[in-house]
Amino acid sequence: MVVDVLNSGDTSWVLVSTIMVLLMSIPGITFFYGGLAKKKNMLNTMFLTLIAFSIVSIIWVVYGYQFAFGSTINGIIGNPLNLFLSGISIDNLHGTIPTIVYIAFQLTFAGITAALVSGAVVGRMKFSAWIVFIASWVTIVYVPITHWVWGGGWLQQMGVIDFAGGTVVETCSGLSALALSILVGKRKDQALLPHNLGYSVLGAGFLWFGWMGFNGGSALAANGLAAMALLTSNTAAAIGLITWVIIDTIHDGKPTILGALSGAISALVAITPAAGFVDIGGGVIIGIGASIFSYYAVTILKPKLGYDDSFDVFGMHGVSGIWGTITTGIFAVATIGGVDGFLHGNFSQLMVQVIATVSTIIYAFTVTFIIAKVVDLAIGLRVKENVEIEGLDSNIHEETGYRL
Amino acid sequence: MVVDVLNSGDTSWVLVSTIMVLLMSIPGITFFYGGLAKKKNMLNTMFLTLIAFSIVSIIWVVYGYQFAFGSTINGIIGNPLNLFLSGISIDNLHGTIPTIVYIAFQLTFAGITAALVSGAVVGRMKFSAWIVFIASWVTIVYVPITHWVWGGGWLQQMGVIDFAGGTVVETCSGLSALALSILVGKRKDQALLPHNLGYSVLGAGFLWFGWMGFNGGSALAANGLAAMALLTSNTAAAIGLITWVIIDTIHDGKPTILGALSGAISALVAITPAAGFVDIGGGVIIGIGASIFSYYAVTILKPKLGYDDSFDVFGMHGVSGIWGTITTGIFAVATIGGVDGFLHGNFSQLMVQVIATVSTIIYAFTVTFIIAKVVDLAIGLRVKENVEIEGLDSNIHEETGYRL
Amino acid sequence: MVVDVLNSGDTSWVLVSTIMVLLMSIPGITFFYGGLAKKKNMLNTMFLTLIAFSIVSIIWVVYGYQFAFGSTINGIIGNPLNLFLSGISIDNLHGTIPTIVYIAFQLTFAGITAALVSGAVVGRMKFSAWIVFIASWVTIVYVPITHWVWGGGWLQQMGVIDFAGGTVVETCSGLSALALSILVGKRKDQALLPHNLGYSVLGAGFLWFGWMGFNGGSALAANGLAAMALLTSNTAAAIGLITWVIIDTIHDGKPTILGALSGAISALVAITPAAGFVDIGGGVIIGIGASIFSYYAVTILKPKLGYDDSFDVFGMHGVSGIWGTITTGIFAVATIGGVDGFLHGNFSQLMVQVIATVSTIIYAFTVTFIIAKVVDLAIGLRVKENVEIEGLDSNIHEETGYRL
Repeated sequence: MVVDVLNSGDTSWVLVSTIMVLLMSIPGITFFYGGLAKKKNMLNTMFLTLIAFSIVSIIWVVYGYQFAFGSTINGIIGNPLNLFLSGISIDNLHGTIPTIVYIAFQLTFAGITAALVSGAVVGRMKFSAWIVFIASWVTIVYVPITHWVWGGGWLQQMGVIDFAGGTVVETCSGLSALALSILVGKRKDQALLPHNLGYSVLGAGFLWFGWMGFNGGSALAANGLAAMALLTSNTAAAIGLITWVIIDTIHDGKPTILGALSGAISALVAITPAAGFVDIGGGVIIGIGASIFSYYAVTILKPKLGYDDSFDVFGMHGVSGIWGTITTGIFAVATIGGVDGFLHGNFSQLMVQVIATVSTIIYAFTVTFIIAKVVDLAIGLRVKENVEIEGLDSNIHEETGYRL
Repeated sequence: MVVDVLNSGDTSWVLVSTIMVLLMSIPGITFFYGGLAKKKNMLNTMFLTLIAFSIVSIIWVVYGYQFAFGSTINGIIGNPLNLFLSGISIDNLHGTIPTIVYIAFQLTFAGITAALVSGAVVGRMKFSAWIVFIASWVTIVYVPITHWVWGGGWLQQMGVIDFAGGTVVETCSGLSALALSILVGKRKDQALLPHNLGYSVLGAGFLWFGWMGFNGGSALAANGLAAMALLTSNTAAAIGLITWVIIDTIHDGKPTILGALSGAISALVAITPAAGFVDIGGGVIIGIGASIFSYYAVTILKPKLGYDDSFDVFGMHGVSGIWGTITTGIFAVATIGGVDGFLHGNFSQLMVQVIATVSTIIYAFTVTFIIAKVVDLAIGLRVKENVEIEGLDSNIHEETGYRL
Repeated sequence: MVVDVLNSGDTSWVLVSTIMVLLMSIPGITFFYGGLAKKKNMLNTMFLTLIAFSIVSIIWVVYGYQFAFGSTINGIIGNPLNLFLSGISIDNLHGTIPTIVYIAFQLTFAGITAALVSGAVVGRMKFSAWIVFIASWVTIVYVPITHWVWGGGWLQQMGVIDFAGGTVVETCSGLSALALSILVGKRKDQALLPHNLGYSVLGAGFLWFGWMGFNGGSALAANGLAAMALLTSNTAAAIGLITWVIIDTIHDGKPTILGALSGAISALVAITPAAGFVDIGGGVIIGIGASIFSYYAVTILKPKLGYDDSFDVFGMHGVSGIWGTITTGIFAVATIGGVDGFLHGNFSQLMVQVIATVSTIIYAFTVTFIIAKVVDLAIGLRVKENVEIEGLDSNIHEETGYRL
């Protein structure tokens, strides 16, 4: 689909979408997680996000982009010919937009995926261990999966469809979070008592509208497809919110705002791979399903299995990412994204989606587990018990969130 | 003005404007209202906004858009031929932008108008009653007025000019808020003592810059008209802020930040219908007038009449919406928006604006009153007295905003 | 480079960039400073930003734009032929975008520069004095420097390169802040104990991603150059954050989140003049240097010299602005922005950058000092001692930030 004529309208839209994902990566995740944290760990929680985004920003321009999107070596990894973006001028095009725009847009995806993972281990992980872990993780886990799905790798060759990252971003961050949280171990106090729900509402609000750039921008053009991706995403978010409110009301008689936000986010996760492939009806079903599956993952599966994924990165991003990636293979409609799913007679697409999902699950979980184990043996993953009890802000950063 | 050639620059701008209005609808109103609320009602206040936006999002794609913008049936309502957006493909155009973009942009207008209304009744309305009310209200009040003014209905046929919603959004939400607040009744404690003014500054900030997409995007193109709408809006906001600060200082000797924000918002309300029709000078006069009229509506009219419109939705959006819609018919300049107002010799335009305003006032107030009355009789509008006194967050949602 | 054909993609991007700088000016600076303030002065701190932006918004459309960008009178100031924007229609073009877009974009630069200055004098300056000062300052300091560098004045004629305001915005605000803080004098209590670091994280987040519009939008087109400016800026911000974290860790063993934010902002300041002229490598060096120089300016230079620049406007914007403007003359690469720097054999460019920097330093410091002195003699710059001790919010505005 290389057109090789600069389209300033498309470029404008993808530039803006890049800014929208920055907004999700910086204030979005930072405040969603920061609000859910305990007061004594708020700054550390926010810091994990900021430092992860910053490290990934540097890695991406040094070698990350190139390994992810360089011409493929046997479908496994990109050819590192343009390290430090050498040889890429401002006149190079990727379709109708400058290559540099595409690099920046993809950078923000890498950054937000890394930031997401931190939600599993807040309140107990060493700051230095997080830095070493996330630099390794983005290199060995995120970059290869991105190559496979979007960079010309084996899954893309097999025909997987993933509009904005059901595998690359969501399933990948969810399973990595699960593996890391198992190795870091449980907190002394696992109660989820957010210290500032307003911050979480704010963060979720940024996520909601930033996601319109995340999904809409993935059309890489300012056209009807981008609009459809945006509208489908908003519809899914809305129905996901409503669904969780209904389940909350049925179970406990009381709808909670944290539940409402969780429903919206789960649905946005699930619609991420589907956004440019399904119609509004498909978006509604995907959104409802995401809210239901993530609800039960968080309230039943998690206590049963006993892992301590603090802010439910696995329950929300992992579970709904899997659901979304697979259902994209069911509800895809050729008139929108050019590919039909199982419901329109294309069974093989569903199979490809399952293969991509299972591969992402296995690779992300296993390799993350190994990285975390190595970091644990080398420098230790976990803070001392008294630091955890007293709080990380005062111990690690000598700062306090509030003087009210 | 149907051009039927996709313009990616225009599309990019309207997509972005859609995201900007999302920002106003979700964090903007949510935090402006959330900050003004009492601490014990903060989450419920925020929840009213979120659930309203979500419900409207679903209604809009199911039937709302179609009734509002389908080909008109005698100027009254749109013909519901494309329910669930059936038959609308990603290639359909509305002028130079995809129809789907226009649907999404208009969705956000419906969502924010519904969210605005909640400000009148915070701290005392049943959550279930709000849900039933707002779903009915958007269907029976918002959708028809939108059809009349923008969807080919009788007011548009008569030649009303309303750039971004002086009638549809502002006068409509203001009068609906008044009717609803009368039926819900007064709070036990009516003092306006914001629990977190920082949140309100934040919300107002989002409103200010999101409004640039609201008004600028209404040009439906990335051109000089969009820029003029943006610049006129910012000018009005600035002079509105300054005006309220001056009045505050004259009356009380102390300028308040809540007053400053109120001045900016009142002016943004008033410039909404005018933005693409008046010049900078017109914007300045409209902004000053809005600040003055809303100031006196809030400080003198409200106590005199005795209704309890908690966050002055009527005083700000109703009063300044009326002022803006009528003055658009006075200051409009043909070289900007193609239509002259009274000041440039076109008296009939002023008359049309008055008719549109009066019609909106009567319809919005009356029909909202009836809907609210029916909901009251069916399930009751108001929470029990002890719930109001103890606070809605702990009673209705079993959550607390802060653990500081 | 006047093309005189409207490009809607370019227009869309510059419109959006305008909104992004609004976001920096309103919630960005407001919350960064508001969080750093003492609780008793939070609203006053936020109010200084809001009122400054509003006053500048009015001045800009009345005469500011015209004196800055009107055809030059001997390289000193613009010819005031189009006061009140008279004679500028929505069809006028500035290159490929409407002139009105350019006016609005530049308005936000003036607004944010004025808002920045307030950080030096929070907690002790009279509200009325601030208003008189900032209106004079934007007229006599900001507007002429803008004319010299961007409006066809003598520095532009000499060939200075300043992509998004290393002189105009950063060096200018930094030196003005220093002059003003000296005249206003020291606070009774100079400890920097932020009352709400979350707010500062939020504000810095807005600055970070809004800066992408600030720097990217300065390309005045949606193309590879805009993308390069954006990517270089993000890279600098990331490495600046990491650098400060490393220095903090070396010095104190504890990385602080306030340090991390300071590193990112210093680097964004320094990359501002360079963004569209240097490559990624240049951005990395500029970002690291900014973080180092601002660190030592804030921790060593300030205590040694003894001025009380409350939030280090000089240490961050002044010092890193100077560093960035000069290094732009070193690292500029012709293949990106059309101009080579010292490193590519063009020594004279470095000299021009030094001249521009020194001129800005002298002019901004001296004239600001004079303006402040006059305001001090006329109405007094400083609040009474008891007002400072009790806090400005309750005394000047009769409001309180929190009721928690």
